[in-house]
Amino acid sequence: MSVSRNTVKAGGIHRFALPGTLLLLAGCATMRDPLPSWNDGPAKQSIVKFVDEVTDKSGPDYVPPEERIATFDNDGTLWSEQPAYFQLLFAMDRVKQLAPQHPEWRTTQPFKAVLDGDMHALAESGEKGLLELVMATHAGITTDEFADVVRDWITTSRHPSTHRPYTEMVFQPMLELLDYLRANGFKTFIVSGGGIEFMRVFAEEVYGIPPEQVIGSSIKTEFEMRDGKPVLVRLPEIDFIDDKAGKPVGINQHIGRRPIAAFGNSDGDLQMLQWTAAGEGPRFCLYVHHTDAKREWAYDRESHIGKLDKGLDEAHNRGWTVVDMKRDWKVVYPFQIQ
Amino acid sequence: MSVSRNTVKAGGIHRFALPGTLLLLAGCATMRDPLPSWNDGPAKQSIVKFVDEVTDKSGPDYVPPEERIATFDNDGTLWSEQPAYFQLLFAMDRVKQLAPQHPEWRTTQPFKAVLDGDMHALAESGEKGLLELVMATHAGITTDEFADVVRDWITTSRHPSTHRPYTEMVFQPMLELLDYLRANGFKTFIVSGGGIEFMRVFAEEVYGIPPEQVIGSSIKTEFEMRDGKPVLVRLPEIDFIDDKAGKPVGINQHIGRRPIAAFGNSDGDLQMLQWTAAGEGPRFCLYVHHTDAKREWAYDRESHIGKLDKGLDEAHNRGWTVVDMKRDWKVVYPFQIQ
Repeated sequence: MSVSRNTVKAGGIHRFALPGTLLLLAGCATMRDPLPSWNDGPAKQSIVKFVDEVTDKSGPDYVPPEERIATFDNDGTLWSEQPAYFQLLFAMDRVKQLAPQHPEWRTTQPFKAVLDGDMHALAESGEKGLLELVMATHAGITTDEFADVVRDWITTSRHPSTHRPYTEMVFQPMLELLDYLRANGFKTFIVSGGGIEFMRVFAEEVYGIPPEQVIGSSIKTEFEMRDGKPVLVRLPEIDFIDDKAGKPVGINQHIGRRPIAAFGNSDGDLQMLQWTAAGEGPRFCLYVHHTDAKREWAYDRESHIGKLDKGLDEAHNRGWTVVDMKRDWKVVYPFQIQ
Repeated sequence: MSVSRNTVKAGGIHRFALPGTLLLLAGCATMRDPLPSWNDGPAKQSIVKFVDEVTDKSGPDYVPPEERIATFDNDGTLWSEQPAYFQLLFAMDRVKQLAPQHPEWRTTQPFKAVLDGDMHALAESGEKGLLELVMATHAGITTDEFADVVRDWITTSRHPSTHRPYTEMVFQPMLELLDYLRANGFKTFIVSGGGIEFMRVFAEEVYGIPPEQVIGSSIKTEFEMRDGKPVLVRLPEIDFIDDKAGKPVGINQHIGRRPIAAFGNSDGDLQMLQWTAAGEGPRFCLYVHHTDAKREWAYDRESHIGKLDKGLDEAHNRGWTVVDMKRDWKVVYPFQIQ
């Protein structure tokens, strides 16, 4: 994953920087911009204003570091999610890989659809089909084995249209934002509908977010002794869906504190943003709006993936920050940096 | 909770100390012992040896800070658990508090047993009765309301025999151990069969462990809008039991990394210690053995609460550290410091 390492380095310079005022002092000689891939405008200004306020010890909105919790959706917020959630592309690749051991898949949906490359038939299999796909590709092995499978896939596979590793299709402005928040004493968490053990394989290297700060959907696991060695076996049974109203539940379960800042891109993030906004004291909610068909994809109210409809209305009504990717971001991906 | 604040201060001096070598250098003038409440002996020596090894950058057993995960059981490991788990005493007090609104409890078990102070009848209601007790006292309110109830109880209630606040009945040597590990770059977690939202109310103040590093048993919660304000409602339904084989499952779910050190006191911690020990590289497993009937309680193989039987055998067979409280600890509680 050498390219993703570069990605981290590109956005990771601030990771060891000094927080708050010291950062400003240290930066005086060069006036270094902590968000260089963000165009000046209301989105960038609202972020900097919020961070300045909560870190100003003498101000009325000061928040002690231990309460500076920031939660980020992953798909569509930290990396792309088109033409399908990358984890679904992983599941489809895994079906092809496992197919020789499952001759019955040639004639059984949704596996037949995957093997035939028939996305229409796959979509027709609905939620039930998707669930079968996930269980067949994500369960039945140990947690260590699953991590190896994901690590292999994320390192070797390429996106169908950009032909880039998926870990290069992360948003450079969001990497800078993660670093900027951490340099100012924030603890950054992923709160995603994606699989918790899928994301943990690359989240630390790509986003600087350690496994214990990744929250996602999960299947059940079971402790078992195999030849005197303990293993955790992944069972074909849903444990938790970390989406929509599940996001505040997942946040409460894993963090036990309400975030003061939350970042999403779809209606699936709305409850997380509502939960964050409803706390006392300064709050920051931000939606990434996919408006850039040229550099990424443009979609919102009518999209099957990453639909942003109710959330966009609520953001406008409540004055949340809405990032217009086309207008607000100088580059989308790290590889677009000149 | 002024007394517990003193507790934290007593054990909390190292929290801001410098890690590793710097700590040694800084301590040269006074030769300050980071574990002053531990008698010199094999238990203390094994702890210091392990910490020296994993923090020695030039040694063969060096472990990078992000992998220095240490997990601690709570009941019987960080604080006492006699004559009953303190959380059960909380549930019983809560039954008495809520009884006026539940006249039917006067004639229904297990509530009648609690109201009559009849511990024998309560025990006879078995696991089913206990579950009913937990649901009646822990569910049906929001997460914020529950935290307030626990905060009130932990601040005002007293232990039946010592007449001390429960937060004073924490083990001074373990507070020092938590601080010592953190000063050496460890991230410390609680992994307890107790309720996750019960412990989170006091874990940060008493142990220096923030909510996001507390793992425990849980009931389900549900996101709900009440008068336009989002709340999380606690449902009378078990979500997860973080005990025995559940502990490695909870560790994997919340931390996503295998600990390199684990601390427990009962057979309920055995799988956590096995899971920890089975990882590659240096590992440390420790059992607190309750041997001090005078200063605390003495119990092990035959006890209903905190039974340590299989675990004691396995500890002896595998060379894990076993703390003999009577022999190894100069004091048990902070208030015993001369």
